[in-house]
Amino acid sequence: MNARFDVVAIGNALVDVISNESFATVESLGLELGSMSLVDADRIAELYTKLGPATEASGGSAANTIAGVASFGGKAAFIGRVADDEFGQIYAHDLRNIGVYFDSPPSTDSTPTGRCLVVVTPDAERTMSTFLGAGTDMDPSYVDAEIIADSQVLYLEGYLWDQPPAMEAFRLAASVAHGAGRRVALSLSDSFCVDRHREAFLDLIAGNVDILFANDAEIMSLYETDDFDSAIDSVRGHCEIAAITCGPDGSVVVTADGVQRVAAAAVHQVLDTTGAGDLYAAGFLFGFTHGHALATCATLGGIAAGEVISHVGARPQISLATLAASILA
Amino acid sequence: MNARFDVVAIGNALVDVISNESFATVESLGLELGSMSLVDADRIAELYTKLGPATEASGGSAANTIAGVASFGGKAAFIGRVADDEFGQIYAHDLRNIGVYFDSPPSTDSTPTGRCLVVVTPDAERTMSTFLGAGTDMDPSYVDAEIIADSQVLYLEGYLWDQPPAMEAFRLAASVAHGAGRRVALSLSDSFCVDRHREAFLDLIAGNVDILFANDAEIMSLYETDDFDSAIDSVRGHCEIAAITCGPDGSVVVTADGVQRVAAAAVHQVLDTTGAGDLYAAGFLFGFTHGHALATCATLGGIAAGEVISHVGARPQISLATLAASILA
Repeated sequence: MNARFDVVAIGNALVDVISNESFATVESLGLELGSMSLVDADRIAELYTKLGPATEASGGSAANTIAGVASFGGKAAFIGRVADDEFGQIYAHDLRNIGVYFDSPPSTDSTPTGRCLVVVTPDAERTMSTFLGAGTDMDPSYVDAEIIADSQVLYLEGYLWDQPPAMEAFRLAASVAHGAGRRVALSLSDSFCVDRHREAFLDLIAGNVDILFANDAEIMSLYETDDFDSAIDSVRGHCEIAAITCGPDGSVVVTADGVQRVAAAAVHQVLDTTGAGDLYAAGFLFGFTHGHALATCATLGGIAAGEVISHVGARPQISLATLAASILA
Repeated sequence: MNARFDVVAIGNALVDVISNESFATVESLGLELGSMSLVDADRIAELYTKLGPATEASGGSAANTIAGVASFGGKAAFIGRVADDEFGQIYAHDLRNIGVYFDSPPSTDSTPTGRCLVVVTPDAERTMSTFLGAGTDMDPSYVDAEIIADSQVLYLEGYLWDQPPAMEAFRLAASVAHGAGRRVALSLSDSFCVDRHREAFLDLIAGNVDILFANDAEIMSLYETDDFDSAIDSVRGHCEIAAITCGPDGSVVVTADGVQRVAAAAVHQVLDTTGAGDLYAAGFLFGFTHGHALATCATLGGIAAGEVISHVGARPQISLATLAASILA
């Protein structure tokens, strides 16, 4: 079925503020290593004051995925809210100039564009503190049904579950997509996020989600088990396709037909794992919307994840289409 | 002689907007590969519209140097003008949180903080388009004599020569430093900048500059020769110490006593040469103000340059004090 877009994503529009810090600093700031926490304006200002020099780059989990899809050469659209400020303009520039369709109107009140303080520790792990800013506006009125109905896959980030109106927007968007005969994909985002919303996720996945993205920690948290294979068994009956990443051990694609394991891409150095899951989803969805076998989709996901963890920042720095050329030749 | 600061620098306060682009894009934008051009607000907006996704980070040549001095553990101060806007706040944060003293009042008019579009091509070379913004304000009233008199070395970036009032500020600052028995260092910044201001530089160096930083192209341009050794001969009688970088071939330290060649640091990958010269000067000046031999100063410069070219962005991402520990042990 023809579609204007391969993938449309709904997510938090966030500018990442990235700094390298010691484990001691993370502890002294009262942050939980590897987690994402929502914080208010005062707390983000307090944290920023204490962080070392930083770099700024457009981020947001689902937006990173959609930038990755575009970098592969896919047709991609993003729905998310920025403010009419300097970071909002940067955000729109960075999406549009990689070829993403982004037409969400900026908010008109004085709340600034959302930002995420990304603290990278020497183990390349990231600990995130997110101030949603203008992104807290998201509600069902925000769902662009025309775009969603004209996209092969609707992609949703789990992080949006932290805001009840956004959760409603998600349900509405999923029903629009399915009504138009499209597929719905969801990323669980973060094991802490899964902890906060386990019942809502379990309920949403049943009947609403066709493709589930998660890492090993998240899928085990979802099914409240310490056993990876048992989590895989659970997800197998729960949605059509589950793509589960296992860090350096690659990924596992689970369907009714069975379980396929796919190796990770070779990476010379791991500098910053921010965006690894987001870019895995990008490669997978690019492959999926271009008719490739699921194992190839997983390989493309691994290539994209490998690129993004080899440098600081959560979006590709080189063309993923070029990187993928040898696989797809 | 005791001093509150090891190094104080005066320079353009610029936020770098960094994107990776093809050679074809650089050509189609009408940019001269490897150059730095001053542009106005309209031109920077036009260029930005055409660039791909970017990351933002505090930059500015002399400020990069001063951030490097602080990263080595040196006592460093910076004089430069930002606006009272979001980028101005980021700029101050990034300097202060690495330990740099930065007390220049933001400008009060509506001109935004200056920015520099840094286009990185596949050869890791950078081509820069600078909109000085609030930085165009700099004039002699800006020279903080108390800070300069209390710093072992005053460091000046050649780029400021592009603004006549800033040139006056430089001359005043140099006379304050010498009046207090301090040393004056100058970076030639860019061979195009040398072309624009050759006579002024030659005049300034004689009697006003104690330590000159340049790369091979700049020093040959300064003395209008195609022969490196002949440029070295010329500079030898012109200022007390000249530290000339030669890319992967390391650097050459020239004094009345002779010429010392020092190898470059080993670098696994060169991703972005932005800041290489700035960070070389940082290492050299940290060593110089801590009583090290000139060859050690050059080695420290090489270590700092090697760190900064191994990643995107013009400031160190890891502690230079840690990198230097084995050399200084």
